[in-house]
Amino acid sequence: MNTPVPTLQDCELLDQHDPLRALRAQFELPPGVIYLDGNSLGAMPRSTAARVAQAITHEWGQDLIRSWNSAGWFTLPQRVGDKIARLIGAGEGEVVAADSTSINLYKVLSAALQMAAKDAPEKRTILSERSNFPTDLYIAEALCRQHGYTLELVQAEEIDAALRRGQVAVLMLTHVNYRSGTMHDMAALTALAHAQGALTVWDLAHSAGAVPVDLRGAAADFAVGCGYKYLNGGPGAPAFVWVHPRHTDRFWQPLAGWWGHAAPFAFTPDYRPAPGITRYQCGTQPILSLSALDCGLDTLLAAEPLGGMAALRRKSLALTGLFMRLVRTRLHGHGLSIVTPEDDALRGSQVSLARSEGAYAIVQALIARGVIGDFRAGDGATEADILRFGFTPLYLGYADVWHAVEQLREVMDSGQWREARFSQQHAVT
Amino acid sequence: MNTPVPTLQDCELLDQHDPLRALRAQFELPPGVIYLDGNSLGAMPRSTAARVAQAITHEWGQDLIRSWNSAGWFTLPQRVGDKIARLIGAGEGEVVAADSTSINLYKVLSAALQMAAKDAPEKRTILSERSNFPTDLYIAEALCRQHGYTLELVQAEEIDAALRRGQVAVLMLTHVNYRSGTMHDMAALTALAHAQGALTVWDLAHSAGAVPVDLRGAAADFAVGCGYKYLNGGPGAPAFVWVHPRHTDRFWQPLAGWWGHAAPFAFTPDYRPAPGITRYQCGTQPILSLSALDCGLDTLLAAEPLGGMAALRRKSLALTGLFMRLVRTRLHGHGLSIVTPEDDALRGSQVSLARSEGAYAIVQALIARGVIGDFRAGDGATEADILRFGFTPLYLGYADVWHAVEQLREVMDSGQWREARFSQQHAVT
Repeated sequence: MNTPVPTLQDCELLDQHDPLRALRAQFELPPGVIYLDGNSLGAMPRSTAARVAQAITHEWGQDLIRSWNSAGWFTLPQRVGDKIARLIGAGEGEVVAADSTSINLYKVLSAALQMAAKDAPEKRTILSERSNFPTDLYIAEALCRQHGYTLELVQAEEIDAALRRGQVAVLMLTHVNYRSGTMHDMAALTALAHAQGALTVWDLAHSAGAVPVDLRGAAADFAVGCGYKYLNGGPGAPAFVWVHPRHTDRFWQPLAGWWGHAAPFAFTPDYRPAPGITRYQCGTQPILSLSALDCGLDTLLAAEPLGGMAALRRKSLALTGLFMRLVRTRLHGHGLSIVTPEDDALRGSQVSLARSEGAYAIVQALIARGVIGDFRAGDGATEADILRFGFTPLYLGYADVWHAVEQLREVMDSGQWREARFSQQHAVT
Repeated sequence: MNTPVPTLQDCELLDQHDPLRALRAQFELPPGVIYLDGNSLGAMPRSTAARVAQAITHEWGQDLIRSWNSAGWFTLPQRVGDKIARLIGAGEGEVVAADSTSINLYKVLSAALQMAAKDAPEKRTILSERSNFPTDLYIAEALCRQHGYTLELVQAEEIDAALRRGQVAVLMLTHVNYRSGTMHDMAALTALAHAQGALTVWDLAHSAGAVPVDLRGAAADFAVGCGYKYLNGGPGAPAFVWVHPRHTDRFWQPLAGWWGHAAPFAFTPDYRPAPGITRYQCGTQPILSLSALDCGLDTLLAAEPLGGMAALRRKSLALTGLFMRLVRTRLHGHGLSIVTPEDDALRGSQVSLARSEGAYAIVQALIARGVIGDFRAGDGATEADILRFGFTPLYLGYADVWHAVEQLREVMDSGQWREARFSQQHAVT
């Protein structure tokens, strides 16, 4: 690493020549804020307010019940799903936007366990990562209780060996880890799982819109993901669900509501699941929030003429790479260690820093300076406290990264974070 | 019935003296429309657009991730739930607004089956009504498959005898029937169910905000309901769930997501359910749609100083009673029979008319004249096609009812509905 450390001027030059720079104008961000928390809640597209206002005052207020047809409310989960499909390597008609990630995980994991019970009844384990997002583990735990399976939790580096023991019915992983930002090799792990007779369930919460995903190319089995992080769908936006077409029609999922029925308006007393992904719908969807998600997706699809997810990925890696390099050089000796892998192939679109003391206060002091990241507590034993920074190439530039690191350096140099006002008072940051 | 049939002038006089008349100003309705479909999608409150715009541009756009605390997003399901509680005879902290009715039904029915399996393992039946809203039956069917129970469907008048056979673990009913508008006696059926060792699950989709409900008074066990009908929460607004406090902490519900965890931000790998109704939450909720629901509830709570649900009920019964009387007198001989009970104690806030021919076309011809009701197909055997009219006392007056019946009379007298443009082309109305 003999090249000189980038200066602010270097970063400004990179911004000037950034082919994706114009995409930033799609977003409204508060003045003076550098927003590094798009991995938790994406920023607000400028188009959203008008679109949702239209859905309220015109579609609902004027056209009322007729909008289920005339405004296409009834097919909105599919139409939004088709936009998501373009970001994750799924085909048209294979994704629906609906419900929450947790609930969609329950649907696909239920279906996967039914399939496994039929195709490989001797395998009785769901394998996952101990540091997976907890709600995924809770849902798996609930289903294990119901179906008589065991949830086996291992470290990332133990997944391979655990699969090879041949007891795994379902491998359930979050593609990019929410704490560390480490990315799994979806194609390789799916191939290994299949070779061992296991199905794969992928949570794309920190992948969709953040890194290129190729579900079809990896021959994955099931996937779910989140609408309010990198998809910029707004707070609590509906999530999404994908099932490989070779599986969709084999089983029911148990959240068998009328939106998943083959003839929802026939109102027959017996459930007859619709073909394809439609059977992974359950009840009526929140149209206002779904309309906002539709706007969020348009901000990503606007990158298609500029190279799409591949171009966004190049910039994302450049931003996270720059951040790590600046942290290493300009924050040396401040007790901040980089948790996220240096290897591009193993890194999502975030960088996590660990510190044995004061992580919460440092994040708060940064927020007070307009640099918004977030904090995730460690378990006090194997896991350190984490400062988490998400990098969204749609609305972040290289100079933003430079300024963010400078603010962090000033917080550390000044010891400002030790002030009482930054001490931990709330569990939620 | 020797009193003269009300005239338009009589109806206008009733409107002038209606103590609830001022509540109508809370809503924006299209000019020339008489909206009799609030039982499917409630009308738009005037306050909603500004409130949601604030949630988008200020809470999300400016305060970003901080709004989970500063705007109270994280507690919005409870705060909205507390407003719903006031309409359904539940206590503070006993209701959450979340997910869809179908999904909430899955949660409570799962818990009820766990309880029944422990407390009365010999009882293996879920009892419901054949004409219950189909999605409720689908969810029950899915859970019966999972848990080895049988779903027994009977006619309303057979419920009593079916309960007395002593095999019922859970009685699952929709309080007001979506097709006929017939209302069950919740207190009496709950008492009978309990005497027979059965639990009760009530779907309040056509009750909450429509008729007085007293869950605590009836000592009911579980309830769910809809946010977008009489609660005016907007298209696909989140639903709600209530569990009697004597039951909440006994069992998990299987949709065990992080929002139901005792310490959601501790991110521990093991699920530990929160006490009380909070454990009936699962994942992140759609905040924009939930904010709109909050506005819808305010339109109902605005009736509290005017007598609340009791006053709304008096007007609702007067409106539906007037409609039925006018149909009987002014539409005599047109083949329209009233399906909804004449007895006030058995009637919700809608009136359904059956016709052996042309029901769909008649509804369409009415809509073309600005009178919006809806159509529900019969099964071609025991059930006739239905013209459905909902009466929301918040925004409907007596003269509206008079005009609606006159429009229906003109459609029938003129035979206008026989025109090709009104013939059935779509399954969704």
